[in-house]
Amino acid sequence: MDIKALEDRYDQMKRRNWQIDITRGKPAPEQLDLANAILTAVGPDDCIGADGTDYRNYSIGTGIVEAKQFFSTFMGVQPEEIIIGGNSSLNLMYDTLVGAMMFGMPGGDGPWKDQAGLKFLCPVPGYDRHFAICERLGIEMIPVEMTGAGPDMDAVEELVSADAGVKGIWCVPKYSNPTGETYSDEVVHRLAALKPAAGDFTIIWDNAYAYHHLGEGPAEVKDILEACKAAGCPDRPVMFGSTSKISHAGSGVAVIAGSQGTIADATRKMFYATIGHDKINQLRHVRFFGDLDGLKAHMDRHAALIGPKFAALDAVLTRNLEGKGLATWTRPKGGYFVSIDVMDNCAAETVRLAGDAGVKLTPAGATFPYGRDPRDHNIRLAPTMPPVDEIESAMEVFCACLELASARKHTG
Amino acid sequence: MDIKALEDRYDQMKRRNWQIDITRGKPAPEQLDLANAILTAVGPDDCIGADGTDYRNYSIGTGIVEAKQFFSTFMGVQPEEIIIGGNSSLNLMYDTLVGAMMFGMPGGDGPWKDQAGLKFLCPVPGYDRHFAICERLGIEMIPVEMTGAGPDMDAVEELVSADAGVKGIWCVPKYSNPTGETYSDEVVHRLAALKPAAGDFTIIWDNAYAYHHLGEGPAEVKDILEACKAAGCPDRPVMFGSTSKISHAGSGVAVIAGSQGTIADATRKMFYATIGHDKINQLRHVRFFGDLDGLKAHMDRHAALIGPKFAALDAVLTRNLEGKGLATWTRPKGGYFVSIDVMDNCAAETVRLAGDAGVKLTPAGATFPYGRDPRDHNIRLAPTMPPVDEIESAMEVFCACLELASARKHTG
Repeated sequence: MDIKALEDRYDQMKRRNWQIDITRGKPAPEQLDLANAILTAVGPDDCIGADGTDYRNYSIGTGIVEAKQFFSTFMGVQPEEIIIGGNSSLNLMYDTLVGAMMFGMPGGDGPWKDQAGLKFLCPVPGYDRHFAICERLGIEMIPVEMTGAGPDMDAVEELVSADAGVKGIWCVPKYSNPTGETYSDEVVHRLAALKPAAGDFTIIWDNAYAYHHLGEGPAEVKDILEACKAAGCPDRPVMFGSTSKISHAGSGVAVIAGSQGTIADATRKMFYATIGHDKINQLRHVRFFGDLDGLKAHMDRHAALIGPKFAALDAVLTRNLEGKGLATWTRPKGGYFVSIDVMDNCAAETVRLAGDAGVKLTPAGATFPYGRDPRDHNIRLAPTMPPVDEIESAMEVFCACLELASARKHTG
Repeated sequence: MDIKALEDRYDQMKRRNWQIDITRGKPAPEQLDLANAILTAVGPDDCIGADGTDYRNYSIGTGIVEAKQFFSTFMGVQPEEIIIGGNSSLNLMYDTLVGAMMFGMPGGDGPWKDQAGLKFLCPVPGYDRHFAICERLGIEMIPVEMTGAGPDMDAVEELVSADAGVKGIWCVPKYSNPTGETYSDEVVHRLAALKPAAGDFTIIWDNAYAYHHLGEGPAEVKDILEACKAAGCPDRPVMFGSTSKISHAGSGVAVIAGSQGTIADATRKMFYATIGHDKINQLRHVRFFGDLDGLKAHMDRHAALIGPKFAALDAVLTRNLEGKGLATWTRPKGGYFVSIDVMDNCAAETVRLAGDAGVKLTPAGATFPYGRDPRDHNIRLAPTMPPVDEIESAMEVFCACLELASARKHTG
């Protein structure tokens, strides 16, 4: 098609007055329905814990014994290597980095706020909320390319050994946001084997999609904590997980896991902030899922609901774009996103055109530190929330926008 | 009795092997039972909010519309003057002061961490968890005497006007922890009229016991936000409340209230930390209480349960100690504590003797900054948790310990 034909197609689509939002990784109502029984899973006759504690009352800062048992299998650690938090793993990550700023991390030289030249490695494309925390705290972000099997470890090794200001790295090791890739064993091994100049170099291991496969899975990831223990740096990874996209997104349970040194440090920091998190909600999760097999079976039901949405998205992209050289995109086996790389300088324009046609996409640049994609070429698609027919319509619009934007930028 | 007789009486009591814990202000199981229906107050057919939002999903950082409506009446503010948080007001207070350290407060000169000589006024006796936050953050604590109607305002006025390092004051305005006193209108007025050297002087207004009367109440406290607006310093008070001692202590809802400037600042700070708090639990509270009258009626039932415990405690103290000149104590009309002042240098020894006899009390000194009561004379009693007969037994032991400690220190 020439530009005129592309413009005509776009104008036709625009007249349809779409109102579809695929900006955020939110579960669909049908996914939330799967967990409705959790709302009433704990009644008045079930509030006393295995150790006799009345879970309706104060006490227990780091989680009830039943939840430590359950979530330690969830995270693949020992019960003494976990803290059960509130409803938000983002909150736990934020508090971890604020705690590092104010009080330092194990193995380091005190509070980060008293040190100059703080930096964090940010695999790109990545998660905007991670980057926002660093920006807020004044920690300079250094992008590192994702490779399809985790971050470019040659670059990571060079950066961490050269500069004691490099304090950590953001990692989403499985079905990464947004590329959907899973870290290879070699990447995990090399992360554990790093020789950072900073004694308190910290891996923020945000395993947000640990059980979130799309029909074949979940994938295996090499155990980072075990690898770091073997490498003599047990306190390096601070691991996070949550049930936000497993039970109910606003009312889940989030956890921190790590070495006993990591947990002791986090517990000490948490003592000043709270008497304890919501124990009844912790118990609801244990009662609803029963055990890890119950949770895995639950996630198979999620996969059955959202797998077809990813397939529909891919089918429309393939039909419209394959062989045209305009874009490459991921075909994730799990997670909540598809990452699409378009031609340079076409991402923002594509997102703008789609928005004008009623299809809201994640803002271009959001997958990069400071919201700046230097090549303006990456777009995150989040197909879980709308029904399949809306995903298909949204992707038809998207493809029309992408082709038009590409033609305008790269011809004439 | 001479010392020998006091020692004999103490030894007799010790042989009874008491195991009574009155260290913390925890509600009794019977109080928690009153709110058991909240556990199942929201089921699958009641998760869509008045504005159409699915409360099981992500979104809404500052609280659901129903909760803003309900808790704004609870706090005596407008719905746009409140943020609904998680389960812990202590956590909100901690985050407020950490936020001040990292990013500053409205009206100030930037992050407190970059300023020297940070100080906070601490009315004494007071709440150990408040003091622990200041100590943790390196904020020097300056004790100010409580008067029976709030802090000594002459001292407060002098301290805040003389030193720009004085950044704030801890206030528990109603049924204060541990003295049970309620701030007079004059104290509230003078707090609003302060002329601090610090532009961002902040009143941490922890209204933890706003509805927690013991049979005649709740008491009225002059509206600090209104007073500060009238005095031209609307952003001075940051107000906190929670349902921790109203519904279930570990699963309540905590809130921040204040001017629109205060709320805008807190919202901005909270954005980086979380997508949002537990909306279902917010809705549970709205559904369970209905409105403020429902909550007040609920607190009348609490009063009926714990009022007799305070009466029993007072009766034992009166019978054993009245007229002996060994101690003075409060007769609160609300709250969770009785504060008793013993003879100088006798508090720690009394607590130690009681502990050895199986009656655990709040550690002596806990009601003062740094855990140091300079006269070693104040003890906090927390009679809500055990049944009446245990309170009576505990107080008999306590009086025996107090008389023995006093005799040992002040005779011979």
